[in-house]
Amino acid sequence: MVAPVTSIDRNLGSPQPSLDPLFRLLGADLARVNALIVARMQSPVALIPQLAGHIVAAGGKRLRPMLTLASAHLCGYRGDRHIALAAAVEFIHTATLLHDDVVDASDLRRGRDTANAVWGNKPAVLVGDFLFARSFELMVEDGSLRVLEILAHAAAVIAEGEVAQLVTANDTTTTEAAYLDIVEAKTAALFAAASRLGAVVAERPPAEEEALERFGRNLGIAYQLIDDMLDFSAHQGELGKSVGDDFRDGKMTLPIVIAFARGDAEERAFWRRTLEAGEQGPGDLDRAIRLLERRGALEETLTRARFYAAEAEQALAPFAPGPLRRALVETTAFATARGY
Amino acid sequence: MVAPVTSIDRNLGSPQPSLDPLFRLLGADLARVNALIVARMQSPVALIPQLAGHIVAAGGKRLRPMLTLASAHLCGYRGDRHIALAAAVEFIHTATLLHDDVVDASDLRRGRDTANAVWGNKPAVLVGDFLFARSFELMVEDGSLRVLEILAHAAAVIAEGEVAQLVTANDTTTTEAAYLDIVEAKTAALFAAASRLGAVVAERPPAEEEALERFGRNLGIAYQLIDDMLDFSAHQGELGKSVGDDFRDGKMTLPIVIAFARGDAEERAFWRRTLEAGEQGPGDLDRAIRLLERRGALEETLTRARFYAAEAEQALAPFAPGPLRRALVETTAFATARGY
Repeated sequence: MVAPVTSIDRNLGSPQPSLDPLFRLLGADLARVNALIVARMQSPVALIPQLAGHIVAAGGKRLRPMLTLASAHLCGYRGDRHIALAAAVEFIHTATLLHDDVVDASDLRRGRDTANAVWGNKPAVLVGDFLFARSFELMVEDGSLRVLEILAHAAAVIAEGEVAQLVTANDTTTTEAAYLDIVEAKTAALFAAASRLGAVVAERPPAEEEALERFGRNLGIAYQLIDDMLDFSAHQGELGKSVGDDFRDGKMTLPIVIAFARGDAEERAFWRRTLEAGEQGPGDLDRAIRLLERRGALEETLTRARFYAAEAEQALAPFAPGPLRRALVETTAFATARGY
Repeated sequence: MVAPVTSIDRNLGSPQPSLDPLFRLLGADLARVNALIVARMQSPVALIPQLAGHIVAAGGKRLRPMLTLASAHLCGYRGDRHIALAAAVEFIHTATLLHDDVVDASDLRRGRDTANAVWGNKPAVLVGDFLFARSFELMVEDGSLRVLEILAHAAAVIAEGEVAQLVTANDTTTTEAAYLDIVEAKTAALFAAASRLGAVVAERPPAEEEALERFGRNLGIAYQLIDDMLDFSAHQGELGKSVGDDFRDGKMTLPIVIAFARGDAEERAFWRRTLEAGEQGPGDLDRAIRLLERRGALEETLTRARFYAAEAEQALAPFAPGPLRRALVETTAFATARGY
């Protein structure tokens, strides 16, 4: 992919950050994770691997399982447990995606039709349940109650965050703090758990577990805030999602929370009409984007995302410098560079 | 409740079997389970306990957690672990119900509006996920990998059964064997796991685990077959569900599989039109019920259910006779008596 001109301008002399170094270092492990994912989504009920395969093959970035792999290696782990646990993490993520797409009635993910768009909501809900259960089966085979505790808790927190997001939808009084709580729960909790697992399998002291947890949590927040920005970005069509999905769903993401707080009476009336009353017509998405730009809400969201990315980078300080730590630092840069 | 006259006729001299003896013996334990369920469905996200409380308070029979309590006592268990595990079983069941009602677009359960009818599909899916995760948190606190293995596997099998049921919906070529596989998965797997757990916490030998597993599995099959009958029963309105739900969903339950197999060309054309093509008009449900009666399909389903109930009763033979075993035998009788 060629970096857009604006990015080159902003990053004069430095190439666009990417996940490539991480993939290069962990490629062999990731191939094993992918093979395990395919093996463990099988079922005598053919629709299950069909539907699960559709979303798995759509090829997400595998960012969350990569965090488990990377943190295990960063902790000097030499065994095999991180492979199955990375697959368990990806199964939880995939189950969440399937249910999210049903909840949001999304038609497009990663540039392909969503599973619910192809097969309907019913099997998407049930195959999500299957993958969720399968994820716990993988953890049971691993045999660590500590791992089960971390991921069972993360799964509960994710669901809480998703429900909280539903509750705040269409509510323009949502505060920034309330929204950040939702982001921590629905997105960052799994990033944090995935990263922590590396220290757990390597049996490292609590301080390293917590450092990796902090890394994952902050990276997850940065990542979600950029996702929120991209929902309003003209470039977003390239990313395989529909532009303006969050706006149409009335989701109170950070850019909107900021633009509402900074808006005048007329602007607030616009947000209330489009988001609270849900009355949206042609041109409203364009106007929303103009208001976000006028109030610097996208720029401000990017600034916040960079803050969390810097926190994530700092959390890696206790670990030995080297190619893997550099690749993880670049991952934090990648998370925010997506927003340029 | 007064037993209908026909039941008195059929059970001359013997009272209608009920769950009362089981409730009397396990009432104290069940109160603890209910308190734990309420405590552990709490969340700072208020909608979660609201929605979960709606379905929990609707007051199902708590049959599955009762099986865990009963089997633990039957195995001479004297500790506390069965309480939390019974709650975990009920959480899995409740999560399944929430998702089922979304999948079936049901409006009524246990005589009340379903959660999806009150709050919509979105929170029903997500609160189901929350309860599922919470169930695993309860198991992790219990600390037994064996328990986690049993319930994680049961959860995967349940989801497989639900998907298989979706796949066979509207398919009049569904065989009896295929349908019984679905029943074993979607319903009997949790009855079996719930029953097995009693022997696990009591650390009894494999033979007792398997006897209780067999008890639960056969009871679950009998229970589901009667449920299938009741969907076509005139008395069913009393049970708090809508009559003919399965028929409208095109579900190929055992009564229909039997009636289709025994039907003539005209009858098969009727089943194909109403179930495969999904073309149903006024009077079709009544006609379906008449055809089921003409072909003895409801009676035959009851006969099968009685067979499985007898198997369940027989599975209890290795355990010491006494009030608890008698109450469980009466539970098997209750499962089929619902169909009179």
